[in-house]
Amino acid sequence: MANARSSADTATQSAPDTHNVSVCPNGEYFELPQPEDYAAEFERLKKLADEQRQQGRKVVVVMGVGFVGAVMAGVVADSTDKTAQQPLYFVMGMQRPSTRSYWKIPYLNRGIAPVEAEDPEVAPMIERCVNQRKTLTATFSYDALSLADIVVVDVQCDYLKDTLGDVKQGYADIAALEDSLKVIGEKISPECLVLIETTVPPGTTEYVAYPIIKKAFAKRGINEKEPLLAHSFERVMPGRKYVASIRDFWRVCSGINDKAKEKVVAFLSDVLNVDQYPLTVLERPVESETCKIVENSYRATILAFLDEWSRFSEKNGVDLIKVVDAIKIRPTHSNMIFPGPGIGGYCLPKDGGLGVWAYHTLLGFEDQIFKITPQAIDINDTRALHVTQLVRDALRNMGRIVAASKTTLLGASYREDVGDTRYSGSELIVRKLTEMGGEVTIHDPYLKHWWELEKQDTYPAPGHSWARFFRNQESLTDTRIRHELKDALKQTDAVVFAVRHEPYMALSPDDVVEMIGGPAAIIDCFGILDDEKIKRYFQLGCEVKGLGRGHIQRIKEAVRKEKAKN
Amino acid sequence: MANARSSADTATQSAPDTHNVSVCPNGEYFELPQPEDYAAEFERLKKLADEQRQQGRKVVVVMGVGFVGAVMAGVVADSTDKTAQQPLYFVMGMQRPSTRSYWKIPYLNRGIAPVEAEDPEVAPMIERCVNQRKTLTATFSYDALSLADIVVVDVQCDYLKDTLGDVKQGYADIAALEDSLKVIGEKISPECLVLIETTVPPGTTEYVAYPIIKKAFAKRGINEKEPLLAHSFERVMPGRKYVASIRDFWRVCSGINDKAKEKVVAFLSDVLNVDQYPLTVLERPVESETCKIVENSYRATILAFLDEWSRFSEKNGVDLIKVVDAIKIRPTHSNMIFPGPGIGGYCLPKDGGLGVWAYHTLLGFEDQIFKITPQAIDINDTRALHVTQLVRDALRNMGRIVAASKTTLLGASYREDVGDTRYSGSELIVRKLTEMGGEVTIHDPYLKHWWELEKQDTYPAPGHSWARFFRNQESLTDTRIRHELKDALKQTDAVVFAVRHEPYMALSPDDVVEMIGGPAAIIDCFGILDDEKIKRYFQLGCEVKGLGRGHIQRIKEAVRKEKAKN
Repeated sequence: MANARSSADTATQSAPDTHNVSVCPNGEYFELPQPEDYAAEFERLKKLADEQRQQGRKVVVVMGVGFVGAVMAGVVADSTDKTAQQPLYFVMGMQRPSTRSYWKIPYLNRGIAPVEAEDPEVAPMIERCVNQRKTLTATFSYDALSLADIVVVDVQCDYLKDTLGDVKQGYADIAALEDSLKVIGEKISPECLVLIETTVPPGTTEYVAYPIIKKAFAKRGINEKEPLLAHSFERVMPGRKYVASIRDFWRVCSGINDKAKEKVVAFLSDVLNVDQYPLTVLERPVESETCKIVENSYRATILAFLDEWSRFSEKNGVDLIKVVDAIKIRPTHSNMIFPGPGIGGYCLPKDGGLGVWAYHTLLGFEDQIFKITPQAIDINDTRALHVTQLVRDALRNMGRIVAASKTTLLGASYREDVGDTRYSGSELIVRKLTEMGGEVTIHDPYLKHWWELEKQDTYPAPGHSWARFFRNQESLTDTRIRHELKDALKQTDAVVFAVRHEPYMALSPDDVVEMIGGPAAIIDCFGILDDEKIKRYFQLGCEVKGLGRGHIQRIKEAVRKEKAKN
Repeated sequence: MANARSSADTATQSAPDTHNVSVCPNGEYFELPQPEDYAAEFERLKKLADEQRQQGRKVVVVMGVGFVGAVMAGVVADSTDKTAQQPLYFVMGMQRPSTRSYWKIPYLNRGIAPVEAEDPEVAPMIERCVNQRKTLTATFSYDALSLADIVVVDVQCDYLKDTLGDVKQGYADIAALEDSLKVIGEKISPECLVLIETTVPPGTTEYVAYPIIKKAFAKRGINEKEPLLAHSFERVMPGRKYVASIRDFWRVCSGINDKAKEKVVAFLSDVLNVDQYPLTVLERPVESETCKIVENSYRATILAFLDEWSRFSEKNGVDLIKVVDAIKIRPTHSNMIFPGPGIGGYCLPKDGGLGVWAYHTLLGFEDQIFKITPQAIDINDTRALHVTQLVRDALRNMGRIVAASKTTLLGASYREDVGDTRYSGSELIVRKLTEMGGEVTIHDPYLKHWWELEKQDTYPAPGHSWARFFRNQESLTDTRIRHELKDALKQTDAVVFAVRHEPYMALSPDDVVEMIGGPAAIIDCFGILDDEKIKRYFQLGCEVKGLGRGHIQRIKEAVRKEKAKN
């Protein structure tokens, strides 16, 4: 164990052999484990499992300690028997030792959460489980699986698009999931529950996971036992309620047979707050898998719906922000959402794609039944390009062009008051303006590092950035990020208000123009500017445009008349 | 006045000259007014207006006493000064004396509401305003307009589709509205507020109504006064809260200039419950007009979204009803609606069409920005056709064909527990099965008369029925309606549960099969049958299918195995 720990904990600051190290977000290097480390690591795990079993605890292996898995591992490790307040589960967070992800293992074993989180609950929960309760460890070894009573699969399943704006041209990237399932089948005890928490193409549990594990069992001579497979998707949400979005939220689950169903219900009832947020048990895994896809496609559709009305509004003197507020007052319409400069996050841009793909591949249908689901994604994926048109047009009104201008982007995240840049519309704005020859400076108070702008062979996984759909992206690295707002705004030609981060909501036009050093094009993507501010920007000589804000033309005209009068 | 009243009240039961009479729903005939009746009618109105003005009341003319206008007239006539509880307005409900609509005038003047309503508040409100408070009268004469302080326009504006399933092929039928506006311009005092309550193509108030009235004013030599035009859409909902949906609900309004805006705010604040349901005042009428279209298009989209997932579910063992319930538990998704056998009602099938039409015609744009809005309508308009496929397939599994079968449709309305058949999916089911050669029997506990199945030259207006998109519709009249369920079900081959009317929810499979006299095809369009009932129908030898209910196949298989075992 000492050996394994030292390996896991070996950090170096010297320039590393990139094939053999993993770099954590703050730049620390970790050497990857060597073949000889595995035996000791298994000994460590086995000893822990034996000790924990003696205390009556079950062993849970969480595969994949990314955005969902890391916090799920914490929630399970932090859960207790409802009466005696004793831990019920010992958790091993497991992650392949790749250069991209290995660092998470030593991180976790120090008691540090390997995910950035605005939720103040994350860090102490991980610290507590690892160092005080000692119900959580992390490992790079698949051998952990052989010790598991329950395996929770939180391996990512991406959807890779071949083009921008046509999600049907693409495919579900289930290879990593298939690999994981194969190893699971090779390692687990036949009585072990395998709970797939990943959002997967509907049918995956029965048509992909079941045959893989069944065959692996057969190879091991296990023929009389049916794999105990279950599906239960998470509804995790980044931000200040990250942990609660896993623990204190409604869950849907299903199992491939009665025994799997019983086991998954028992497990989720132990670890989640099912008293306040009751569990829905569906009959078949395909129903649970479909549920997640429908749920997120619904949200994607709700957002996409307003894109065309946003364009309509811009052309016809309508302020869609006020219209949406007038509609949202109705309880049946209260979930209407103004879409901002694109719909990001990990789920909404892809989940519908997984559904459409499953229909034609796993499920084998020829007919094109999907109309709205893929169209919503296509609309959402390309909405940000319209922002760059507004930048172009506003600059043109000031006698400037994008290619000779500097644009400052305020907000890189996909939603307000978090630092999560996955598939954000802001990324597309940066890339398109760069393609048009413009120079872009970035500011975001929550952003530490914009992974998607980095080289694709380190962060993030291929396909996780929009880079491949644009030319001339070489100049884009996160060196363009300014941490001080006044540095970001200084001498800029255009300012794009992209995200409703709280600090941006409070900015006064006078301060902005002063930081810039003169008038500029001001683009509001998200109803960030009220009518008073818009008016003031015009008074200060700026040119203002906004997504869905056709009334700006009237304000401009009023200011022009007012100036003409004076 | 005696003369006019007798004219208005003349009813006859003898066979009439159809050009000269108007037939009310219960079959009573009313002779249309003759040219010589108008002078006396105006005298009556003028006298009433003078009397009412002396009591400090303003005169409101509501043009069009249909589904919205009749109840709006009642709400205005029923409103009072908030402190003294005195009526503030005297209302004249005005309707052209056409054969189709004239009967509403004498009806109203008896104190009878000319609309069918499940809301117990409607009848007494109309009765009270006409006969006790005497704040409401009805008239066939446009001359009423010359007496008005406020005109509320509730004239219909239809959207006529050229084909089924392609809403872009069609046009807004604004002729009736234009005619009304022309008369308004010819008659009203220039100080009169004209409040358009009709759902109109965005831009109508400024680009259609304004020039019409402006020109009419000019012809009358009124050049210095600007027309006082406003728009405020209703959010009326048939059912038990019909009146409340007008009076006790949030309103949006706007005016074409400051004076019109002030007047409309004052008027709506007098007659509606704005303390509990605050008014939203938008800057321009186009914003208010757009608001209504966006609001209803949103609803249409939410409904259309599930159609493709309903088809997916049927083919892949998913019960979408349970999936929707699992999703709706999330507050952000609680307005998800299972779409049933099509989306009817007066608004949702057309409002998006008005928006798209306005963009290309009134507003003059060439580009196709609208994707989801028209597609949602197309999906909703054709969804019912899938029901007839389920009828066909279920009958086929029993060795029968539609053309040699009798189908019983349970539910003709477009929503549960009302008798409103406008654009209902049920109508399409009846027409498609008829086109396929099938015989259809109809039952609906709330249905008195199915106007859309009648000849198109009486009820309803042309374009208000789907008849023209189908062959062989001649045999369809409401003689096919059975008022007793057992008469409707007797010896039928297929039963379509189309609407979630309360009496249908309670029906037991054993009772249904007994009323039929043997097993039949059972089609559930709306999650009306739970799994126990579905199982029982199979046990009784029926064949069951359901919209979005792919799990039925599993129930069938389980019953088959159970039977094989016995």
